[in-house]
Amino acid sequence: METLSEQRCFDGLQGRYKHPSKQTGTTMQFSVYQPPQAKSRKVPVLYYLAGLTCSDETFMIKAGAQRLAAELGLMLVTCDTSPRNLNLPGDADSWDFGVGAGFYLNATQPPWAAHYRMGAYVDEELPALIEAEFPAAEDRRGIFGHSMGGHGALVTALRNPTRWHSVSAFAPISNPSAVPWGEKAFTNYLGADRSLWAEWDAAELMAKHPHPTTILVDQGEADAFLERELHPQALESAAMKSGQSLTLRRHIGYDHSYWFIQSFVADHLRHHAALLA
Amino acid sequence: METLSEQRCFDGLQGRYKHPSKQTGTTMQFSVYQPPQAKSRKVPVLYYLAGLTCSDETFMIKAGAQRLAAELGLMLVTCDTSPRNLNLPGDADSWDFGVGAGFYLNATQPPWAAHYRMGAYVDEELPALIEAEFPAAEDRRGIFGHSMGGHGALVTALRNPTRWHSVSAFAPISNPSAVPWGEKAFTNYLGADRSLWAEWDAAELMAKHPHPTTILVDQGEADAFLERELHPQALESAAMKSGQSLTLRRHIGYDHSYWFIQSFVADHLRHHAALLA
Repeated sequence: METLSEQRCFDGLQGRYKHPSKQTGTTMQFSVYQPPQAKSRKVPVLYYLAGLTCSDETFMIKAGAQRLAAELGLMLVTCDTSPRNLNLPGDADSWDFGVGAGFYLNATQPPWAAHYRMGAYVDEELPALIEAEFPAAEDRRGIFGHSMGGHGALVTALRNPTRWHSVSAFAPISNPSAVPWGEKAFTNYLGADRSLWAEWDAAELMAKHPHPTTILVDQGEADAFLERELHPQALESAAMKSGQSLTLRRHIGYDHSYWFIQSFVADHLRHHAALLA
Repeated sequence: METLSEQRCFDGLQGRYKHPSKQTGTTMQFSVYQPPQAKSRKVPVLYYLAGLTCSDETFMIKAGAQRLAAELGLMLVTCDTSPRNLNLPGDADSWDFGVGAGFYLNATQPPWAAHYRMGAYVDEELPALIEAEFPAAEDRRGIFGHSMGGHGALVTALRNPTRWHSVSAFAPISNPSAVPWGEKAFTNYLGADRSLWAEWDAAELMAKHPHPTTILVDQGEADAFLERELHPQALESAAMKSGQSLTLRRHIGYDHSYWFIQSFVADHLRHHAALLA
């Protein structure tokens, strides 16, 4: 692991790092905010997964989360949205597939299968690295994200509920198997057999195996992607089926941007801090 | 004035706009955060001036100030750091002069004098526009800024203390006449006669005519520009001479970045809100 920068922020440390990833076979960058409490003890860690086109920097710069993370004693970790600099055929042809659009799954189809393993990267490799290199409590991991990253957070926690102790999402792609963004990504990464998509689909997973904690989801009603891509109602149906405890809030007038995220990020940090305490 | 975007944020409105400026002879962009209180009444306005290379977007995206502005009922206004798209000879040769580096003064030297009038833009034209187009209280204006914008905020308020009712700064260029950034800018914008520089130099102005309110200045001790360019001690000397009430805080470990600004922006908003109430 190599340190790219470390700067003081709210009496803690905002850092950016890179490391060679075994899962992706590339150099991956990530960012960490260490709250002041981490100077003297291990602290709970809250992982954030960003949406299409974003990087590890987006949330750290735009969400205004460090203030409350410092107060609550939460470490924040953000990673990239895909491997980069591979120049695989077609990986940069569109903004909703390939570079910046890894969908936090493990691809099975060529040429993606060898590198597009963001599922295992987020679930295993990154936490192992964080827990080895930073004062991170091994038994208190939370995860949240936005849009494609909301999908990633829900799927990661629902697939491995014993590893992930809290989960929430902003405007997640709730049922990717049924929307254009998800159909494009899953067809390319996972192949045409739709029966194999269910294990990476939050609504499908939630309908079968609920997460033991309440899941918090915030959705803006003025979100331009709501009707076509996000389908939060699929989470409500799934929760009904499995008994998942779900708090889905719909906010009038808010869109898909980080202005929406920053408006409600404090509620998410408090949600995770309570479960990770 | 033309609206470029308006998005809900903390129950208020984050907007970006453009207008033809008489002072600069160019189209100028600016951003406004309207707190929820502005839906029903005129609110105090706090203007922020950004540093070298920045735009009206920098503070709005990176400072995390909207949350507390919404709570305190403060409107936030940010403008650009210079006119743009003029293609004057030499205006894009360096990052510390010309485009992105207007220094919030009224140039007197060709070819700058016709367009580089950010002093009058910030002091007169922009507030007049804001007060005509937004629910902005005409008698409660505050101003703050960072680095070159800290210089701009101090100079604007000290030159016109009856128009500006509160002022603060992050890591300001406190005595531009005596440092490389200021010498380069003032020589080009104002000419070689240094006696004419004093009216745009915060330390020189403060030594003669104090602002009637306490001025808050925050400075990071790990700021790479501190020794060479910023000289906050010049403000302490000036305040001693004139009796200016000055709160200058030096923060161990903080640098020149927006991680520093976001760490202390709440103190600045509260400082202004108290004086503008």
